[in-house]
Amino acid sequence: MTGVKKWALDMACVPWQATILTLFPTMFPGPLGQSLAGRALKNGIWSCQVEDLRPYGLGSHRAVDDAPFGGGAGMVMRPDVVDAALKAIPVKKGVSRIYLTPRGRPLLQQDIQHYAHSAGVVLLCGRFEGVDERVLEAYNLEQVSIGDYVLSGGEVAAFVLLDACIRLLPGVIGCEQSSVEESFSKGLLEYPHYTRPAQWEGRDVPEVLLSGNHAAIAAWRQAQAEAVTKQRRPDLWSAWVERSKK
Amino acid sequence: MTGVKKWALDMACVPWQATILTLFPTMFPGPLGQSLAGRALKNGIWSCQVEDLRPYGLGSHRAVDDAPFGGGAGMVMRPDVVDAALKAIPVKKGVSRIYLTPRGRPLLQQDIQHYAHSAGVVLLCGRFEGVDERVLEAYNLEQVSIGDYVLSGGEVAAFVLLDACIRLLPGVIGCEQSSVEESFSKGLLEYPHYTRPAQWEGRDVPEVLLSGNHAAIAAWRQAQAEAVTKQRRPDLWSAWVERSKK
Repeated sequence: MTGVKKWALDMACVPWQATILTLFPTMFPGPLGQSLAGRALKNGIWSCQVEDLRPYGLGSHRAVDDAPFGGGAGMVMRPDVVDAALKAIPVKKGVSRIYLTPRGRPLLQQDIQHYAHSAGVVLLCGRFEGVDERVLEAYNLEQVSIGDYVLSGGEVAAFVLLDACIRLLPGVIGCEQSSVEESFSKGLLEYPHYTRPAQWEGRDVPEVLLSGNHAAIAAWRQAQAEAVTKQRRPDLWSAWVERSKK
Repeated sequence: MTGVKKWALDMACVPWQATILTLFPTMFPGPLGQSLAGRALKNGIWSCQVEDLRPYGLGSHRAVDDAPFGGGAGMVMRPDVVDAALKAIPVKKGVSRIYLTPRGRPLLQQDIQHYAHSAGVVLLCGRFEGVDERVLEAYNLEQVSIGDYVLSGGEVAAFVLLDACIRLLPGVIGCEQSSVEESFSKGLLEYPHYTRPAQWEGRDVPEVLLSGNHAAIAAWRQAQAEAVTKQRRPDLWSAWVERSKK
């Protein structure tokens, strides 16, 4: 028995619960069945429940969508169909219900930390032009966007949100320190990384990293983190400067 | 033969080329083998070439990573290993080489449009703490972030970038209009969608959408798009107001 599995059993842990409502149930766990997330799934650290939206569809074709009122391209997922699927998911305390959409508020690392420390998430994956607004309002779903681009559906966004959460669950990453030092955890991008060989194709590792001087290394890394943030993310840099003034 | 397949053959099209360098080759095409992207793959609209990084590893264990110089948690992918894998990928004109990392510039819909109109992308998926900085510099890889959160590796980010590109390739989405009206295409979030039934659980579809008055519908949708952008995305809203002044 691995250490992590033993830990999970010792704690009589309830797994962190991922519930996904989708028209493509066989996509899950998919990539999350491998690597870090896959091991955590096998070890009972998280569970993956997939709810197929299709059986809630109407008529002999189990239609889930219809044309948009007011005209326009594409199809819209019907409120009654999504409602029936959401009704079938037991409401659990501390579980966020989320609709993944480019119209949502941006997903941030602090949201990921919040979700990872909760009991789990229910994720509604839209397809086509999206979901009828009324059912989103009726359930007061959190509307969350993983970035400023448009996907073919919410499934790929669900992988992102789940992967980011799962790696923060206790016992998934060996070293807790790793997630304290990484990008966004302090409002800056991370410093650059170097490993062996010390010389490669005429490029040397910055000398300070070989010095053994821990204070100098920490100062260099901080300066590098600030420089890359300033250069690539003026938005994060402004927020960082504001906070540093206080 | 489907219309799309016929189109691809008629045009003697070279498929849009996705090349993925990863330690988890069996993750691909994964979810991109289903639905819209899956049909496009079968129809030869895009191709998916996966390059396993492991065989480029060193020694009998094919090690790809080592401890970071300067200390700290986690492991870093070696520059010589990543170099060997990148050397094995033929350089093609018009193909962007991208390293997916939270330290990158934010991925935007305009980048997706650029990539989708090019010959394809080469995506380097990092794992552990990331990739040695020197090899990123030596190849001048585009460093791109899909959002302000941390993933267990670049693979899930690769699904996002590819899915967003593939849906824009000619012949993938039936209606071109759909991708013109969606979120970000004009700098605003999209208006809300409604479909049948017109009355659902005491909630009516906004009356204007049933009016048949196309000008009134367009004006209402524009106002809704502006309102949701203002509320959820003050950053996009400010940029929109600035542009509108010019």
